[in-house]
Amino acid sequence: MSYERDNIRRMRGYSYGEQPDDPDIVKLNTNENPYPPSPRVAEALAAFDADRLRRYPPPTAGPFRALAAERLGLAPEQVLATNGGDEALRLAVTAFVDPGGAFAMADPSYSLYEVLAHVQDCRVEAVPMTQDWSLSADFAERANAAGARLTCIVNPHAPSGTLLYADDLARLAESLDGVLLIDEAYVDFVDPELEHDATPLVREFDNVLLLRTLSKGYSLAGLRFGFLAGDAGLIEPMATKVRDSYNQDLLAQELAVAAFGDEAHARQTWRRVREERNRLYGALVARGFRVPPSQANFLLAWPLIGGPAATPEQVSVTVFEDLRARGILVRLLEHPRLRRALRITVGTREENEGLLAALDEIVEARCY
Amino acid sequence: MSYERDNIRRMRGYSYGEQPDDPDIVKLNTNENPYPPSPRVAEALAAFDADRLRRYPPPTAGPFRALAAERLGLAPEQVLATNGGDEALRLAVTAFVDPGGAFAMADPSYSLYEVLAHVQDCRVEAVPMTQDWSLSADFAERANAAGARLTCIVNPHAPSGTLLYADDLARLAESLDGVLLIDEAYVDFVDPELEHDATPLVREFDNVLLLRTLSKGYSLAGLRFGFLAGDAGLIEPMATKVRDSYNQDLLAQELAVAAFGDEAHARQTWRRVREERNRLYGALVARGFRVPPSQANFLLAWPLIGGPAATPEQVSVTVFEDLRARGILVRLLEHPRLRRALRITVGTREENEGLLAALDEIVEARCY
Repeated sequence: MSYERDNIRRMRGYSYGEQPDDPDIVKLNTNENPYPPSPRVAEALAAFDADRLRRYPPPTAGPFRALAAERLGLAPEQVLATNGGDEALRLAVTAFVDPGGAFAMADPSYSLYEVLAHVQDCRVEAVPMTQDWSLSADFAERANAAGARLTCIVNPHAPSGTLLYADDLARLAESLDGVLLIDEAYVDFVDPELEHDATPLVREFDNVLLLRTLSKGYSLAGLRFGFLAGDAGLIEPMATKVRDSYNQDLLAQELAVAAFGDEAHARQTWRRVREERNRLYGALVARGFRVPPSQANFLLAWPLIGGPAATPEQVSVTVFEDLRARGILVRLLEHPRLRRALRITVGTREENEGLLAALDEIVEARCY
Repeated sequence: MSYERDNIRRMRGYSYGEQPDDPDIVKLNTNENPYPPSPRVAEALAAFDADRLRRYPPPTAGPFRALAAERLGLAPEQVLATNGGDEALRLAVTAFVDPGGAFAMADPSYSLYEVLAHVQDCRVEAVPMTQDWSLSADFAERANAAGARLTCIVNPHAPSGTLLYADDLARLAESLDGVLLIDEAYVDFVDPELEHDATPLVREFDNVLLLRTLSKGYSLAGLRFGFLAGDAGLIEPMATKVRDSYNQDLLAQELAVAAFGDEAHARQTWRRVREERNRLYGALVARGFRVPPSQANFLLAWPLIGGPAATPEQVSVTVFEDLRARGILVRLLEHPRLRRALRITVGTREENEGLLAALDEIVEARCY
């Protein structure tokens, strides 16, 4: 007999990218930072006395919370440390959206959003993005009409990499009846010349949450550490009621402080990722791929190449499989709107060169 | 304006024991193991290359899952690693209890149960324990009448420390219409002569979940690592749908394998805790406390002492505060049925001696 709730039985879970054990695989499929974390992480690890794990950790990750608040010019009560960005998203859904209520998002977006909405058994208002991957002009209107209590916008957008400017986000926050969570998982990779900064919105609006993670910008996907910043009135119910009481272990808290405290190191990796992103963008376009300009650490790419024997979608699948056979993993996206685009994480110079060389070989061998 | 859901606004969050920074505090308030974790944890920590944190961890903690399954004589599909026992409880509530549906528990129990039920907005059927801290004879009948889809039983019981035998648990599993989660947070401290073992129930019943944690028995409260064992049909929806996709970080997974793999070390700490528990039990009874016999790593104690100027409840509060002033933390319980009992974690020999000496001083100074 099945004991699952009906909505859980009906839904499909999140499908994550492959995480192979083989260190020789070139892994450009899950948007990890190709450069290692700050050396201070290794130092903190070496200095850590394992016997301290005997006791419970600081329940709300006080030291990290204080550091992140200082960095963003906020009070500690406006920050909440979470077990990766995923926990942050779940906490927001649980705190703000009633079962049967509505949740709004741009479509496509990070595929976890819909999974979390289905777990909470709420309706999803998925507003299609425009042709050039920006937010539909009537987004707020549609979200409000649906009664959305929470809207999640990933910015830079995933999987296209496009950036919504802070002014547009401010207008959106003002227009929405519910909470606006801006998922800034990739914000560290935005060109500094754009002077993009959404943190003033936290002070300006009582319905804005910013989500940040150390997974990408701080090279710590394996550590599961993120945080939310927002009005204390939004943070409080998540921090004191909905959150698992000790959601972050002691070691993760201390390594997160070490990494987040060394922004200079992280900035270097951001700069290198941006340089490689621009190079890879140009090289893919030159090879006949359509690629939206990206402010994230990945590129969305459609082959325009092909012959009478293969549609661009079929070429995409073939390229994905041929890369895989050569030990290079990228992500083949299944969303109907994306028509089997490849999402390619920006790797190191060497990894990207290997990818491009493999693409050239594949195109030659397949006679596209 | 408030954006919280109504049920979240109405509820109160979990109130955790104090976690002071001061290393000189004798901490007998949150049931931590007084002995350090296996030396293999420190070895695994020293051998860990921080750069590996750059990548996502194994999504379902495969290596730990395999180890735990082998230990319990189960298949890996019957085990789910969780971010502490708290996440395990939340996953079960989310997967099996509809909002508006019912959740059953013995009253009193671990106070988090009600918090999780309130977050899910479900009804709580709290069946009072008997006078001698065992389960009410009509427990299953009442849980079924309430329509409970999930029942949580902490065994050994918290906060009394009493043990329900496996035969009784089997009868309960058979009688209940919904899922029975047996929270074995303290099971490692049960006297081996009792030969208590609830794992056969997992093979026998498709509605039984066992919850284990490394927090107490493996001296790793700071690591946040627990697991569930149960029928694959119960584990699957929690593992693939309800769970945050990467719920355990890489380092925690590897330290958990190191600690759980060294059961011999853990067993030594269990034996020492049992010896100290028995000694402390006798010493508290000799000092005029009423103490139920405990199979856990804590004792529930009511002062029977007092004079014309103070009721036993007032004495309890005074003892709590006087201990606190001496740098010794115990837990003062607020549940009405518990009438301000003290819950005292079994410490090291030295800590317990310090506690007893302080109690003697307090009684003398207060002229009880």
